Amino acid sequence: MTYCCALRLKEGLVFVSDTRTNAGVDHISVFRKLYIFGQPGKRFFTIQTSGNLATTQAVIGFLKNQLTIKQEPNLYSVNTMFEVAELVGQTLKKVINDVTTDTLEQSNYYCSLLLGGQIGHEPMQLYNIYPQGNFICATKDTPFFQIGESKYGKPILDRALAYDMPLDEALRCSLISFDSTLRSNVSVGMPLDVVVYQKDSLIVPNGKRIFESDKYFQRISHEWSDLLKKGLLDLPKPTCDYFE
Amino acid sequence: MTYCCALRLKEGLVFVSDTRTNAGVDHISVFRKLYIFGQPGKRFFTIQTSGNLATTQAVIGFLKNQLTIKQEPNLYSVNTMFEVAELVGQTLKKVINDVTTDTLEQSNYYCSLLLGGQIGHEPMQLYNIYPQGNFICATKDTPFFQIGESKYGKPILDRALAYDMPLDEALRCSLISFDSTLRSNVSVGMPLDVVVYQKDSLIVPNGKRIFESDKYFQRISHEWSDLLKKGLLDLPKPTCDYFE
Repeated sequence: MTYCCALRLKEGLVFVSDTRTNAGVDHISVFRKLYIFGQPGKRFFTIQTSGNLATTQAVIGFLKNQLTIKQEPNLYSVNTMFEVAELVGQTLKKVINDVTTDTLEQSNYYCSLLLGGQIGHEPMQLYNIYPQGNFICATKDTPFFQIGESKYGKPILDRALAYDMPLDEALRCSLISFDSTLRSNVSVGMPLDVVVYQKDSLIVPNGKRIFESDKYFQRISHEWSDLLKKGLLDLPKPTCDYFE
Repeated sequence: MTYCCALRLKEGLVFVSDTRTNAGVDHISVFRKLYIFGQPGKRFFTIQTSGNLATTQAVIGFLKNQLTIKQEPNLYSVNTMFEVAELVGQTLKKVINDVTTDTLEQSNYYCSLLLGGQIGHEPMQLYNIYPQGNFICATKDTPFFQIGESKYGKPILDRALAYDMPLDEALRCSLISFDSTLRSNVSVGMPLDVVVYQKDSLIVPNGKRIFESDKYFQRISHEWSDLLKKGLLDLPKPTCDYFE
């Protein structure tokens, strides 16, 4: 399984992905699902992947190979984020069609992708790209996307995330979303990959990998559990009619 | 869709169910999914249902009809909670087999049931009963079961619920679990049905129905959201390397 989430906020973009893959619970591996692309001062984007690992690695492989052999169009030749989304979507569709053209069988090879970034001083964009190659983009009303095992981590995003929230607060919100998912589903696992992009910086961040031993992550995980337990106690007591 | 959860704790039992059923998002109805049975001073139990509505209503219908026509074994004639679970499981299996014996087609008629209660001064029990008629029972290690749309509401139970928690605190925990689910999935809906049973009381509670206008539920929902937002702000800020 997999959990990836991406936020497109007023001040920038936040991306978090886990790294666990499994073919049955007895075959668990660590694979990166968050890929960083960019040319400092010109363009930056990430692609996050969920689904069939052969498909996702083939998509990233094709896109990187186009850059290596300078075949156009490629990620660094297209002009807008919309064109990047089209290129990635068409690559995904081609990869699946290369395996099988049987539409029923194709679902075995499906994957979903999140693409977020900025080119020049055009607005930042965040896309959710489907196996069919089409996509939707995030808006102020719905500033985040999730792919993979999204349900455990959705309540905190639904309650607390807002488009105009500072990036460091949004990052804490998404890390708590991951901590909740890690606790409730063993098929989502550490380490996590995190990338934060400041709007209009056109810096290509290195990103950070969070291992189980990460002191900051351990601390917010413990503090959050304590907060919830104390918070429950502080809520007003149920009225008598609940017990009748 | 549906969300039901049931807790078997040191001090008693807590049951909460939503009431929304849907055949497509354009066909939504309110149906009770929490049924109360009992003989004051002798036995008490509830059955919560998730899945095909015709199946769940047939199961409850058969069980009630056995009581009406005094056909034995029935819910009030069997001696232990284990025998109640067997009776309910076999009734469920029979209802599905009556519709079709094709095992592939049967899955269309599946439902899951939670059964919890106490007979005399035997220990309280909580069972999760599968469409095949077999079941598992809750333990101190795993003091709760969920059926239906369980994922959104699981993190708070995983983090905060404990076997030796007072009933009123456990009730608050389960109501927050429902509030999180209601916010994240429109196929789970108000009103909610709640039953709290005090260990060894052998009282048959009436239960409470929580409507959208319920002041107490509104209050804990708002206070919880405020708590989470404030809690995120109070967490230590991410270190600089998250932004590099």
